[in-house]
Amino acid sequence: MAKYIKKKSHKVGLPPGTLKTVSDKTRKVKLEVINYNQDFLHEKTVNNPYDCRPDNFVNSIAWINIDGIHDVKLIQEIGEYYNLHPLLMEDISSPGQRPKLDDYDDYIFTVLNMLQYDEKKREVKAEQISFVLGENYVLSFQEDPTDIFNPNRERIRGGKGKTRKSGPDYLMYSLIDTIVDNYYIILEKIGDQIEELENKIITNPGPNWLKDIYSLKRELIGLRKTVWPLRELISKLERDEHKFIKPETQVFYKDVYDHTIQVIDTIESFRDILSGLLDVYLSQTSNKMNSIMKILTVISTIFIPLTFITGIYGMNFHNMPELRWENGYYMVLALCGFIFVAMIVFFKTKKWL
Amino acid sequence: MAKYIKKKSHKVGLPPGTLKTVSDKTRKVKLEVINYNQDFLHEKTVNNPYDCRPDNFVNSIAWINIDGIHDVKLIQEIGEYYNLHPLLMEDISSPGQRPKLDDYDDYIFTVLNMLQYDEKKREVKAEQISFVLGENYVLSFQEDPTDIFNPNRERIRGGKGKTRKSGPDYLMYSLIDTIVDNYYIILEKIGDQIEELENKIITNPGPNWLKDIYSLKRELIGLRKTVWPLRELISKLERDEHKFIKPETQVFYKDVYDHTIQVIDTIESFRDILSGLLDVYLSQTSNKMNSIMKILTVISTIFIPLTFITGIYGMNFHNMPELRWENGYYMVLALCGFIFVAMIVFFKTKKWL
Amino acid sequence: MAKYIKKKSHKVGLPPGTLKTVSDKTRKVKLEVINYNQDFLHEKTVNNPYDCRPDNFVNSIAWINIDGIHDVKLIQEIGEYYNLHPLLMEDISSPGQRPKLDDYDDYIFTVLNMLQYDEKKREVKAEQISFVLGENYVLSFQEDPTDIFNPNRERIRGGKGKTRKSGPDYLMYSLIDTIVDNYYIILEKIGDQIEELENKIITNPGPNWLKDIYSLKRELIGLRKTVWPLRELISKLERDEHKFIKPETQVFYKDVYDHTIQVIDTIESFRDILSGLLDVYLSQTSNKMNSIMKILTVISTIFIPLTFITGIYGMNFHNMPELRWENGYYMVLALCGFIFVAMIVFFKTKKWL
Amino acid sequence: MAKYIKKKSHKVGLPPGTLKTVSDKTRKVKLEVINYNQDFLHEKTVNNPYDCRPDNFVNSIAWINIDGIHDVKLIQEIGEYYNLHPLLMEDISSPGQRPKLDDYDDYIFTVLNMLQYDEKKREVKAEQISFVLGENYVLSFQEDPTDIFNPNRERIRGGKGKTRKSGPDYLMYSLIDTIVDNYYIILEKIGDQIEELENKIITNPGPNWLKDIYSLKRELIGLRKTVWPLRELISKLERDEHKFIKPETQVFYKDVYDHTIQVIDTIESFRDILSGLLDVYLSQTSNKMNSIMKILTVISTIFIPLTFITGIYGMNFHNMPELRWENGYYMVLALCGFIFVAMIVFFKTKKWL
Amino acid sequence: MAKYIKKKSHKVGLPPGTLKTVSDKTRKVKLEVINYNQDFLHEKTVNNPYDCRPDNFVNSIAWINIDGIHDVKLIQEIGEYYNLHPLLMEDISSPGQRPKLDDYDDYIFTVLNMLQYDEKKREVKAEQISFVLGENYVLSFQEDPTDIFNPNRERIRGGKGKTRKSGPDYLMYSLIDTIVDNYYIILEKIGDQIEELENKIITNPGPNWLKDIYSLKRELIGLRKTVWPLRELISKLERDEHKFIKPETQVFYKDVYDHTIQVIDTIESFRDILSGLLDVYLSQTSNKMNSIMKILTVISTIFIPLTFITGIYGMNFHNMPELRWENGYYMVLALCGFIFVAMIVFFKTKKWL
Repeated sequence: MAKYIKKKSHKVGLPPGTLKTVSDKTRKVKLEVINYNQDFLHEKTVNNPYDCRPDNFVNSIAWINIDGIHDVKLIQEIGEYYNLHPLLMEDISSPGQRPKLDDYDDYIFTVLNMLQYDEKKREVKAEQISFVLGENYVLSFQEDPTDIFNPNRERIRGGKGKTRKSGPDYLMYSLIDTIVDNYYIILEKIGDQIEELENKIITNPGPNWLKDIYSLKRELIGLRKTVWPLRELISKLERDEHKFIKPETQVFYKDVYDHTIQVIDTIESFRDILSGLLDVYLSQTSNKMNSIMKILTVISTIFIPLTFITGIYGMNFHNMPELRWENGYYMVLALCGFIFVAMIVFFKTKKWL
Repeated sequence: MAKYIKKKSHKVGLPPGTLKTVSDKTRKVKLEVINYNQDFLHEKTVNNPYDCRPDNFVNSIAWINIDGIHDVKLIQEIGEYYNLHPLLMEDISSPGQRPKLDDYDDYIFTVLNMLQYDEKKREVKAEQISFVLGENYVLSFQEDPTDIFNPNRERIRGGKGKTRKSGPDYLMYSLIDTIVDNYYIILEKIGDQIEELENKIITNPGPNWLKDIYSLKRELIGLRKTVWPLRELISKLERDEHKFIKPETQVFYKDVYDHTIQVIDTIESFRDILSGLLDVYLSQTSNKMNSIMKILTVISTIFIPLTFITGIYGMNFHNMPELRWENGYYMVLALCGFIFVAMIVFFKTKKWL
Repeated sequence: MAKYIKKKSHKVGLPPGTLKTVSDKTRKVKLEVINYNQDFLHEKTVNNPYDCRPDNFVNSIAWINIDGIHDVKLIQEIGEYYNLHPLLMEDISSPGQRPKLDDYDDYIFTVLNMLQYDEKKREVKAEQISFVLGENYVLSFQEDPTDIFNPNRERIRGGKGKTRKSGPDYLMYSLIDTIVDNYYIILEKIGDQIEELENKIITNPGPNWLKDIYSLKRELIGLRKTVWPLRELISKLERDEHKFIKPETQVFYKDVYDHTIQVIDTIESFRDILSGLLDVYLSQTSNKMNSIMKILTVISTIFIPLTFITGIYGMNFHNMPELRWENGYYMVLALCGFIFVAMIVFFKTKKWL
Repeated sequence: MAKYIKKKSHKVGLPPGTLKTVSDKTRKVKLEVINYNQDFLHEKTVNNPYDCRPDNFVNSIAWINIDGIHDVKLIQEIGEYYNLHPLLMEDISSPGQRPKLDDYDDYIFTVLNMLQYDEKKREVKAEQISFVLGENYVLSFQEDPTDIFNPNRERIRGGKGKTRKSGPDYLMYSLIDTIVDNYYIILEKIGDQIEELENKIITNPGPNWLKDIYSLKRELIGLRKTVWPLRELISKLERDEHKFIKPETQVFYKDVYDHTIQVIDTIESFRDILSGLLDVYLSQTSNKMNSIMKILTVISTIFIPLTFITGIYGMNFHNMPELRWENGYYMVLALCGFIFVAMIVFFKTKKWL
Repeated sequence: MAKYIKKKSHKVGLPPGTLKTVSDKTRKVKLEVINYNQDFLHEKTVNNPYDCRPDNFVNSIAWINIDGIHDVKLIQEIGEYYNLHPLLMEDISSPGQRPKLDDYDDYIFTVLNMLQYDEKKREVKAEQISFVLGENYVLSFQEDPTDIFNPNRERIRGGKGKTRKSGPDYLMYSLIDTIVDNYYIILEKIGDQIEELENKIITNPGPNWLKDIYSLKRELIGLRKTVWPLRELISKLERDEHKFIKPETQVFYKDVYDHTIQVIDTIESFRDILSGLLDVYLSQTSNKMNSIMKILTVISTIFIPLTFITGIYGMNFHNMPELRWENGYYMVLALCGFIFVAMIVFFKTKKWL
């Protein structure tokens, strides 16, 4: 059942706030530190969480990206340096959280889902990503290393663009923006599949399209479950006052918010379209049934009476005068021919042929 | 998949606020400047954005209409003269935005969709139009030149009406009013198609109406996606306090608002009517099936037993006394006749004939 | 398409606030003036709007009823005497407005729909009626003269009742109350039709009831579109503070409000009931199909095997010993009889007979 | 149409606030007065409204129960003693009001529906009951005498319980609580019917269950229309400040509120369950059709080809060598047997048998 | 009908606040007292409510767990010691309450449902649990002893974790957290069943899956009825100010709140998925019907005309020249063969074979 809800049950019974390895992975965790301000940029990959302590990054901005949330001890150590709340650390290391924002005194905590489209399985995969935004740092936690932030890295390296000149609030915005932009790709893939399906169903109503409709529907149900809380989350970032988000950055969050709304609108439209497609599909099936029945009915209603007539003259009564008529046989043939033509005409007027 | 969502994915990876050519068009951009106040009116088409600088229009109102949002450099240049926010300029030049209103300090920015009905393809086409309303100017951006503002131009030229006497807030109102009025035309077209379909379905349930229902439904889904955010947008214009919208103009925005609500009501009613039509269609199909089955059943149940009787007397047993009866043949014919009539009577009482 | 949306498109392109003749009628407009206070009552029908000027009615209450909103010039003239806003006058003379309330400084403007049931066509007809409530007057505008306000007139003439003692706010209340009471009549008619249909469908599932369900559904969609905004309108009258509505009158508006809510409740219930009726209808159709299929199946499965048996003994092989048996024929008849009875028993146990 | 909406139309045309006999009953009205405080209790049935004047009950609490709202004159007289608003009196004597609460200066007015289950007709019947709660009295108005308040009477007589010690606000609470408790009985009855239906449908899908589903659905639609406004009403009693309801009594109203919510939850669940049952029913019907078709198909596809074979050897051609073969007949029989078995095996593999 | 609503009707007629034995159980009630602070821990099982008096637990925290709410006298006695409101005590001892929170002056009262999955019956069972949170105590009431709080007991005993260091508000949080965590287990079970059903339906559309869909749907309806009010309840704990809940504990309640929302999301998704599964199931059934019809039609339309041909040459006319042709028989066989092949080809092109 891992498809629907992330296994949470095996944590039942543990005190709240307990970190427990959820992933079975034993891969080495990757700690990537990007430390910059307008003037300099240091990029390194470290092994020891000790190198990520906040006091390394005075007067500059640090983006610490942790790939591998299964290493509970490491998360705990980082948590101690940054004074993270136990519940927060529990959320970071338990995938399957609902997207949400928690505003603590010293930082803002957000959990999101990063979506990726698996071309082979034609499936959407979600990975949880958590951000902690502090005075001069952004921590990002996820399980698997991903490439989708490469453009963000490039922009920081390039030194152009607003990121280098702005604070960590802008950095977090640009990361979330990248994630939400990725949702568009997913939607396009799904949109392509819907269009493909539409063509298939309209040209050739095969028996299998329904399963495709169903699996697309299920994918949209999943997406929806991810995007609705995201909307709420970003709305909080955009509207409420936060200690670490400058008003001039909020206009950017508003932009992401608009994108999220558009994603939601599109999901809802897709659902509507799918339900319309379902109607088309069902009606095609029923039309096909109709045309099958028509053929059966036409053939049966023409030949069953004719067969009855031949049956009559196949009887063996001694006294059947017609049998001795010179043209009896031809008259019966003519009668059959007449009935045949009459039936055809009847069906033509009924528009069945 | 361009039908459902505007290609946005190819912009993924660019820094936010980056302008990128979305349209492939290389057509020359048209810059149309209408500069007026109560006393004078200057109309010209210019090539150089430099001629659109705000300081050309002191003590008068300027409406600058830019056809061709693909010319990013030009948009940028205008953006600089008018001090436009980068995100705003990105929105202007990326079609497919969700209708929205952003209130900046120096101007109000709105994005809308202009709808046009393509008579040939029987399809609704949307084009994005953006307005920037400043202290004494309105900038309007769209891709293709359009005629729908001609009446507005005429009214300005005529010098009568309120436009010449009022500020740019009234000018923007009258442009939006024109756009929303155009929605009524679309709705009427769709309404006509629904009525046509209704007649077709009730008089002759063919197999293809469902596709028509489906495509109308999809059109309404699209419309809805456009009009709901529009409602929100205009509601903000009408209700909130804006630096550049005078209270006496807001009563006009309230009027557009009422129209938008009416458009939404009509869309929702159309959806309801379509779903009712779908029921009628499906039930027609199923009634047709019923009548096919009835004919098959009537013919089969009459003639199958009769054929059995002839089969009996077609057997070749040596000892079959009936065969030698003088009137055996006529009695069988009479029996068949009787069964035939009895069946007909039976079906009559069942009201199948 | 006039059934769904009132033609509004031909006004597209006119400056907002332009009055244009919408109706093609050239009928003479009827101006009916009822001027009263607690002590006197003047009733007259005038031709000249000049006689309706507000300064005729100092220290008394005037109800001016204008039948014929197509006479734009006349409306304009009255509008000037009463200082009506151009947008308001546009609304008065363009039927098909959404019910709404606009609160101007010098008067309250409301647009409503008056419903009437056309017994012949079994259709609900809507007519727009607008009220302008000022300090000491009520203006009412509609196209066709109507009788439904006769009881109100009688009550004013009678001098009893609250109307003569109260202000124009009470007068407008009593007019709106009359209109809303009329909605009950419509609902009763529709309710009667639903009940009739219910009986028809349950006793005899004919093919045509679906069209009746559909047309009732469409009528309810139309009603709903009219009543929902009405609710909002009256809620504003009842709750908000208005210059011309006394608090002691608001309790009466609250009463109309309750009635409107009840109308809405009933409409929603009717929609639910109709959708239940649709299920019953569809299921009836499908049950009928089932019973047709049963008969076909019973007859076919009994006689097709029997016919096969007779076919066997109708073959012309030279060496068929059974044919020479003395009782062969009778044994075959007995076999057929046995199969027949066995099949009947089988179908009885299956409860098909 | 009395089933859906109470006849209100015949009152159209009367001035608002006019009392008119709605019921046709001429039964004598019963006036029951229970006057008590902590120390004494007087119970009597009076004929003359004069004996119900409020000044009879100084320093004590009076519950006056009027059975028979058709006696308009009497209602009017009581109304005068208690200074009741004309609209309120109109509501009392017109059954079919929407449950509501009106807060006047001198009293609180509530209208509710009392539900009773008619075991014979298996129908829910509603009766309107109105309460007027004043400083030291509760008036209750309904048409037919009812027993459901007997326990309340007993408790007052018993002198134990909170009623005798508390004010009229507690008395009204205990009456409303009795009414809402009665709703549970109705729900149980409906729940029993649903369960019964469920068993019937699952064990034996007969053609009539749909009508039962439909009538249950209609009953729930009716209940819902009654209970939703009740929720609002009680919520006002529980939350708002009222002159005559003490804060310590409001906790009791909160309890009734919780019950009302639970009633609503249950109604909504029942609706969901019914719609699920409908799906089961429809699918059963369609499965039955499938099994009928299977039998028809199995029999037909087995015997129609066999009959063809016998037909071949029933032909009368002079030159048919097989006919003269010694074992021709047996070979044909064997062929038929083989085809028969092959078909059976084919259907077995298709899982149709 | 006990499945849908808990029997409440037999309490109708009792004064509100009356405790009455609802359960028929006569089992001895278990009183379990856990008294602790940071320094000590006393655990005992007592028989006499007297040992549970609050003055036993000064300067420490007490968790008193009462298993057996049917012992009304005992509940009453405890209620007196802790000064519980009569309505509250009524709620405690009447199972079937809607989850809710009541904030009294001296304590907070909450009612919840504890869910357990009965593996055998594949059914969800609910048990009511009530908490009373006072200054230094938590009372928990339920009918049957349960193991699910064992981990909480262990944690208190262990002395590690936050519980020992925190107040009763944290204790109640940890109990509610345990209950909500248990909901995940239920959801997983249901999720497993849905997935199982999905596989069954897609691979083999048998006639019984619908009942499974229906019973899952009913289970979700029940869950929903339990979880929606729970959400409200916890939201109040998390957001409002309560005398006995410290702000630093509220962050924990917020965590439970997030879990509740996630439970709701999952329930809604399951409902959507089930309705999709229903569509798949119905369409499978209808596809199966289609394939049955196809076979019937193919066989019938091939052999019925052929049988007619053999019927012709089985007639006994004296003058039928073909019968005397040398190759007449073979020509008929060839004709039949040709028709057979032509039909097969026809059905191939129709894609029916």
